Amino acid sequence: MSAPRIDQNRAAVKYSKAELLRRVLWIAGAWVFRLSPRPCFAFRRWWLRLFGATVGQEVHIYPSAMIYCPWNLQIGDWSAIGEWALIYNLGCVTIGERATISQRVHVCAGTHDYTDPSMPLLKPPVVIQDSTWICADAYVGPDVTVCEGAVVGARSVVVKNVPEWTVVAGNPARPIKPRTMSPDVKTHE
Amino acid sequence: MSAPRIDQNRAAVKYSKAELLRRVLWIAGAWVFRLSPRPCFAFRRWWLRLFGATVGQEVHIYPSAMIYCPWNLQIGDWSAIGEWALIYNLGCVTIGERATISQRVHVCAGTHDYTDPSMPLLKPPVVIQDSTWICADAYVGPDVTVCEGAVVGARSVVVKNVPEWTVVAGNPARPIKPRTMSPDVKTHE
Amino acid sequence: MSAPRIDQNRAAVKYSKAELLRRVLWIAGAWVFRLSPRPCFAFRRWWLRLFGATVGQEVHIYPSAMIYCPWNLQIGDWSAIGEWALIYNLGCVTIGERATISQRVHVCAGTHDYTDPSMPLLKPPVVIQDSTWICADAYVGPDVTVCEGAVVGARSVVVKNVPEWTVVAGNPARPIKPRTMSPDVKTHE
Repeated sequence: MSAPRIDQNRAAVKYSKAELLRRVLWIAGAWVFRLSPRPCFAFRRWWLRLFGATVGQEVHIYPSAMIYCPWNLQIGDWSAIGEWALIYNLGCVTIGERATISQRVHVCAGTHDYTDPSMPLLKPPVVIQDSTWICADAYVGPDVTVCEGAVVGARSVVVKNVPEWTVVAGNPARPIKPRTMSPDVKTHE
Repeated sequence: MSAPRIDQNRAAVKYSKAELLRRVLWIAGAWVFRLSPRPCFAFRRWWLRLFGATVGQEVHIYPSAMIYCPWNLQIGDWSAIGEWALIYNLGCVTIGERATISQRVHVCAGTHDYTDPSMPLLKPPVVIQDSTWICADAYVGPDVTVCEGAVVGARSVVVKNVPEWTVVAGNPARPIKPRTMSPDVKTHE
Repeated sequence: MSAPRIDQNRAAVKYSKAELLRRVLWIAGAWVFRLSPRPCFAFRRWWLRLFGATVGQEVHIYPSAMIYCPWNLQIGDWSAIGEWALIYNLGCVTIGERATISQRVHVCAGTHDYTDPSMPLLKPPVVIQDSTWICADAYVGPDVTVCEGAVVGARSVVVKNVPEWTVVAGNPARPIKPRTMSPDVKTHE
């Protein structure tokens, strides 16, 4: 089998000049984001928008969450991204409304074509629709859509689309049951 | 299906005033912990106790381990928590004696009731009994007990109780063999 | 079952005096590495060699990658280690040429013999051969060889050898298909 041509991969133009400039500025921008006090959600929304993100109202993104390329992030009202989550959005990551991304989740919108000797960088989008919950430590891979209302269990590895209002779990993630939601708010404790 | 009511989730009182105060103090406390030199295990034991943890003798917790809420941690003599481990103890995490928690492990004592539109925060306890070993990168989820002497394999995902003296592995973790221990210390090399 | 003898584990000599000295020096060295600007790959190659690593030409190691013991790292020409990867090389980690280790990968060359009450630290080597790709977030455990040209899928958990030119995935990782590579560089877009 022929060896990969990493030299060709390295020589390839992967980002436009404008994007390279944004990436350099974001090195500093990400530090400001990271060091902002935890309750300053409004500041971080504003800061991400400054770097090109589309961020809805009341979005809660925690300071230790890592947004790789803010200009490739779109996130709707009332959604949240938890601590130490990694949004590796080389391609566009679109998150709907009222979606919850828990701590240490990895959303990966980048890959390589490993059948091509030059291992070209690909940037397939990821879509996480309204009312979903991506639980702690889960992984959502390139070119995946997590449909409305789905729950992706803790540490699941999602490599293909998740149907709506379905709970998935495992590596690779498989449906384990439908998600039912009671019409009324329950009383706990 | 009705959409989750994230507004109600946000409005809910999740922590008492006393706990909120401890959380704010621990923001600074966690930095002191994180920056303490590696061999200063005795200092970190003392420091965690100051923030309400119950910590036995000779416990080794590494500076990069993250204890989310020290006041919800109980850990017995001779146990250890390795580098970059995350003890996400919104609820109580009880670790017995001579237990080893390896690097990058995630113990998660928090979840949401996703069948309730307000996605209420739940804080189920986690118990890790004596003489257990939670191997590198494993995940132990809410409401789980890992019984005495069990070995949770590297990268396993534990979502239900682990029987005593059993080795489990996989996602979800399943028993693969009993753990046998020779009565005598062996000679390696 | 008899309890583990953690006291004997702690009392054991795990590293030679020379290695302990290197470990102390690398505490500072790792900070320099971590804070070096992203494009300074040549500096980081030189820096790792200063601490005893064998590093080929054109190797790209990112500043947030964590090399636990540089003196136990051997890596060939044109290989790369991505962001937040952890090379936990208590034992030797040998990486061939044109190998790609993606972001957040964990290569673990250390374990304990849990059948021995003193839980002795073992340092089995890991070998990752030429032309391989270890995808995002994958785990490669102790005593494993990933053979030439293999692709280890995102979040896979590799606990036994991976045959050459094979794609593996899952926890534990299993072969899912052969890796075929077109003889010519393709045109994308």
